[in-house]
Amino acid sequence: MIRPDQRGVAEAGPERDARLLLCLIGEPGDLRLTRLVSELGAVTVLAALREQSEHGELRDSLAERLRAARPQRVLASAASRGIRFLTPADDEWPAGLGDLADGPVLHERGGVPIGLWVRGPLRLDEACERAVAVVGSRSATSYGARVAGEMAAAAGSAGCTVVSGAAFGIDQAAHRGALASGGPTIAVLACGADRAYPTAHTDLIEHIAEVGLIVSEAAPGWAPMRVRFLARNRLIAAITRGTVVVEAAVRSGALNTANWAAGLNRTLMGVPGPVTSASSQGVHELIRARNAVLVTDGAEVLEAVSAAGEHLREPERAQEAERDAITVAERQVLDAVPVRNGATTPSIARAAGLSVPATGAALVTLFGAGLVEHAAGRWRVKT
Amino acid sequence: MIRPDQRGVAEAGPERDARLLLCLIGEPGDLRLTRLVSELGAVTVLAALREQSEHGELRDSLAERLRAARPQRVLASAASRGIRFLTPADDEWPAGLGDLADGPVLHERGGVPIGLWVRGPLRLDEACERAVAVVGSRSATSYGARVAGEMAAAAGSAGCTVVSGAAFGIDQAAHRGALASGGPTIAVLACGADRAYPTAHTDLIEHIAEVGLIVSEAAPGWAPMRVRFLARNRLIAAITRGTVVVEAAVRSGALNTANWAAGLNRTLMGVPGPVTSASSQGVHELIRARNAVLVTDGAEVLEAVSAAGEHLREPERAQEAERDAITVAERQVLDAVPVRNGATTPSIARAAGLSVPATGAALVTLFGAGLVEHAAGRWRVKT
Repeated sequence: MIRPDQRGVAEAGPERDARLLLCLIGEPGDLRLTRLVSELGAVTVLAALREQSEHGELRDSLAERLRAARPQRVLASAASRGIRFLTPADDEWPAGLGDLADGPVLHERGGVPIGLWVRGPLRLDEACERAVAVVGSRSATSYGARVAGEMAAAAGSAGCTVVSGAAFGIDQAAHRGALASGGPTIAVLACGADRAYPTAHTDLIEHIAEVGLIVSEAAPGWAPMRVRFLARNRLIAAITRGTVVVEAAVRSGALNTANWAAGLNRTLMGVPGPVTSASSQGVHELIRARNAVLVTDGAEVLEAVSAAGEHLREPERAQEAERDAITVAERQVLDAVPVRNGATTPSIARAAGLSVPATGAALVTLFGAGLVEHAAGRWRVKT
Repeated sequence: MIRPDQRGVAEAGPERDARLLLCLIGEPGDLRLTRLVSELGAVTVLAALREQSEHGELRDSLAERLRAARPQRVLASAASRGIRFLTPADDEWPAGLGDLADGPVLHERGGVPIGLWVRGPLRLDEACERAVAVVGSRSATSYGARVAGEMAAAAGSAGCTVVSGAAFGIDQAAHRGALASGGPTIAVLACGADRAYPTAHTDLIEHIAEVGLIVSEAAPGWAPMRVRFLARNRLIAAITRGTVVVEAAVRSGALNTANWAAGLNRTLMGVPGPVTSASSQGVHELIRARNAVLVTDGAEVLEAVSAAGEHLREPERAQEAERDAITVAERQVLDAVPVRNGATTPSIARAAGLSVPATGAALVTLFGAGLVEHAAGRWRVKT
């Protein structure tokens, strides 16, 4: 928990005021604005929008909202609901968002957000230092929900922040898994940070706001719209080191987040499932065709997103069976030793295709290992 | 079906006789013999084994079997059971086995087989021209058995030979799937080609001998032993273009076949399954750590093992939804159109963040596409 004065929110100023206003008139991820603002600064772009300039077309399309915008009223109302407004000048601004400047463009969305609305006790930059996105279908199977929850809990237990979208299905399971482990979690919303979408997740979202973070590029009060989900997904990818897609049908929206992650050179991961499950088809295609890393548990996720050396894990190996500790010649002899009626050394040598001395030597070793027994000149397998 | 005289079995001769005898005294894949025979020829190796030479140690270990061997009797008995003996001089010898000459060594096994015992109506070389191995756990789940059967049937329907080991579980399902599709199938055994192991699969193996092929490096009458399975697996990998592991626990024997396939530069494939299933853990590790190709159906298997251009398939795509055919601006407008009570164009323009003319143009397009309707100056979504 941090006090508000520790959050590093920048002082008011013309650039910040201009960004605030632009955030009230532009759609999240509207390339026409994000690109211009990154290049020219918000003050210049806003001035151009207000003048009769070469940005006439853009100005016309935003004129209605520009006239209606009441930035200081929105800011005060947001603050009263615990929502702070961040710009890249704030210490709390996550470094990962900078990669969006020259990042991918999907569905005509892209660019660094002009500002963000944030609610919750964590510092956004710190929470994003080691963060992984866990996303997937709204129509998750019980298998997918279980795996998402377990992975998120494992990530949370390791102090890794779980980022998702608070939707039904995989998103919900991921947030709950992180919360259950006591780990940090961030819900990035397509609607305003004061709203809960889906409304059935009001309690979940309020709880995340109390212990984690709610983040949105959409201004308070704004409704979730399809294009806002597309823009939202780029934030989930950008503020994390990697994205795990737990379940996704062939055209699932979760694949949009995967595309952002791949375009931003983040680690793309996928959880396999039965090939007979439509909910895993999109993930299998990611692994097949997009080189997503196949992950089966939280440790593999942490390994994939960690810097070299951190969280390195040994490949899983069952314990060496006793039979595996012996040489091939000894194994050949052991295979030739009868289980019930004993056999003589020459007879075993013939069956094993080895000389009598070599067979004798092997039998002695096997006897020492307690694998064969000897009585009346005959050997048999010890049972 | 081919007549015996079409099978291209080479004439008797000293090299062939020497190979026959060596096959009765050496273990399958015994590197000491396979390497020497590939380099010096069987006649020379056999002469050395019979003389007091530098191969003293090897000679001692094989002396018992050399004294007991009755090659012509074995050959006649094999022929009476429909089993032919092949050497690399035979036309029917599969070209892929040559890759074993400089191939991997696993568990001290390796090298080109000195001879093979074959039973069944197909020509082995032709059956191996387009062949894929489908292998996996003996303790398969019903999921694994189903997928193995379906993949094998798809391969068989495409005229691709399914090669497996006739074991319980995945092997059985693979053979049965191939047989059900009417496609060719080869069972490579660790015991003699006249035996059935496991005995519960006697009918299956006899059926394969009637319509497909039984292949073994072990002489007729020989029992299945552990080292023979390890040597057998290299043949399964060598005579096929690629190996699909359908299910395998972390230490499953099926991974031994995968290791041969990888060492021989064959295409290694794995079928994903639930991460909660121990039977899929070994396969997931192959995909993660060994770069095995994730395959989910027979078409993907054929694609992976086919030469470029053959069997190419389009990545699966669900049909483009109508909503996806429209531009982002139109989608933005569509999202802003109410479902129940209509709204005016300026109101929709404000909600969409677009100019009134741009919104009007988009509404006309959406109207033309049958997505919105218009009445009394107000627009709403057509339901």
